Amino acid sequence: MPAIILVEPQLGENIGKVARAMLNCGLTDMRLVRPREPDWQTGKAVAAASGATEVLAAAREYPSTEAAVADLNQVYASTARPRDMIKPIATPRAAIADMAARIAAGDGCGVLFGRERSGLVNDDVALSDTVITVPLNPGFSSLNLAQAVMVIGYEWYLTTLEDGEAPASFLPTGATRPARKQELSNLFDHLERELDTCGFLRVVEKRPSMVRNLRTMLTRAQLTEQEVRTLHGIISCLVDRGGGRTPDR
Amino acid sequence: MPAIILVEPQLGENIGKVARAMLNCGLTDMRLVRPREPDWQTGKAVAAASGATEVLAAAREYPSTEAAVADLNQVYASTARPRDMIKPIATPRAAIADMAARIAAGDGCGVLFGRERSGLVNDDVALSDTVITVPLNPGFSSLNLAQAVMVIGYEWYLTTLEDGEAPASFLPTGATRPARKQELSNLFDHLERELDTCGFLRVVEKRPSMVRNLRTMLTRAQLTEQEVRTLHGIISCLVDRGGGRTPDR
Repeated sequence: MPAIILVEPQLGENIGKVARAMLNCGLTDMRLVRPREPDWQTGKAVAAASGATEVLAAAREYPSTEAAVADLNQVYASTARPRDMIKPIATPRAAIADMAARIAAGDGCGVLFGRERSGLVNDDVALSDTVITVPLNPGFSSLNLAQAVMVIGYEWYLTTLEDGEAPASFLPTGATRPARKQELSNLFDHLERELDTCGFLRVVEKRPSMVRNLRTMLTRAQLTEQEVRTLHGIISCLVDRGGGRTPDR
Repeated sequence: MPAIILVEPQLGENIGKVARAMLNCGLTDMRLVRPREPDWQTGKAVAAASGATEVLAAAREYPSTEAAVADLNQVYASTARPRDMIKPIATPRAAIADMAARIAAGDGCGVLFGRERSGLVNDDVALSDTVITVPLNPGFSSLNLAQAVMVIGYEWYLTTLEDGEAPASFLPTGATRPARKQELSNLFDHLERELDTCGFLRVVEKRPSMVRNLRTMLTRAQLTEQEVRTLHGIISCLVDRGGGRTPDR
């Protein structure tokens, strides 16, 4: 996993928030370069970590950015686009894809984050191989430190999931299961029979499109087997409340 | 753009942080359902918004979640996977893709976020069409409110960019330009000529691979035209320091 390296963080509270965001994303290698507050493993940092104390407990302190990145093969700087350096710039997604490939190959990677107010200094950016810039509202792009770590961590965590572990979208049905098409057809038949009986579908030329629209609507609902049974019950119940089937006219 | 709907937020400070994250991502439609602190348009919220006061100023307060979503066509609930409801679940990325398509078609969309500690209640989830669950460390998945908004907002902002506006990765070269291959070849020639002269490449059978490795290394550096000129200068300077060319032996 990538190391998260905070360069001269000013507030212990922010160190704690970063620890929480890191653990949310399965990251535990926190490195601090000259944190301003000496009590970052106790005090406000711990409260702000909301339980991510294992990250704080394992964090290490370094006297310089060079020392903090010494064992890494590839360093990324999270910062707005630098003006005076010719250095590759990547979105979080592209940078993380690159990072994941390097880490899979055994390389050590880390991401530098600067001070809360002023960000990274040029010398730190110069130490980095690639700049990561989060695409944001150009009129309001200053990102809170923990938020910046969150975006990078979120992209990282997505790459660690096995295929299918976080399906893009799915419908969990628990103990029941999606209805089979035969079950749906039976429901349609039941409903349409009753709608014929009560006269809802009495206009012959409109009947086909009305039936089609009802079936479309019920199909879109992705009904489960249990819900189909419930709907059968609802139809029967409504019919009974209406006094039973009307006799054939 | 999607509305960001905070249901019963407890702390004004968190409302402010959400406003900041929203504006970072170009979102300005904030809706609050029964915020606990009445002074959320002043006080701590404003300080925490770090300048995103336009979001706070335009935010609206509602007596119920139903009222807050009344004008919307599609509602998403940001929450852990609910146990007792059969409701589509999507990752932020999938949900935002769906949302962007709906918004492009003219539909109103909004995302519900629950209380800081306890999240959304079941009745609010039931009001929603889709649940958005951020894939996170299953051992530590409780996400800070503003962080949850940030992840959704970040995914949203990415969809608003024109193709090419946020290229995945690129090398900005400013006033100079990437070197042409002819310029690189000239540099290689210059370097290898000097390395031949000083004897660095004297082992005949190793020369081809040594030259190849040097060229590979320099090619990988993605040199600019200006850097190529600089390297010519460096080579010449090093040679001169060494007392000029050694005479042919």
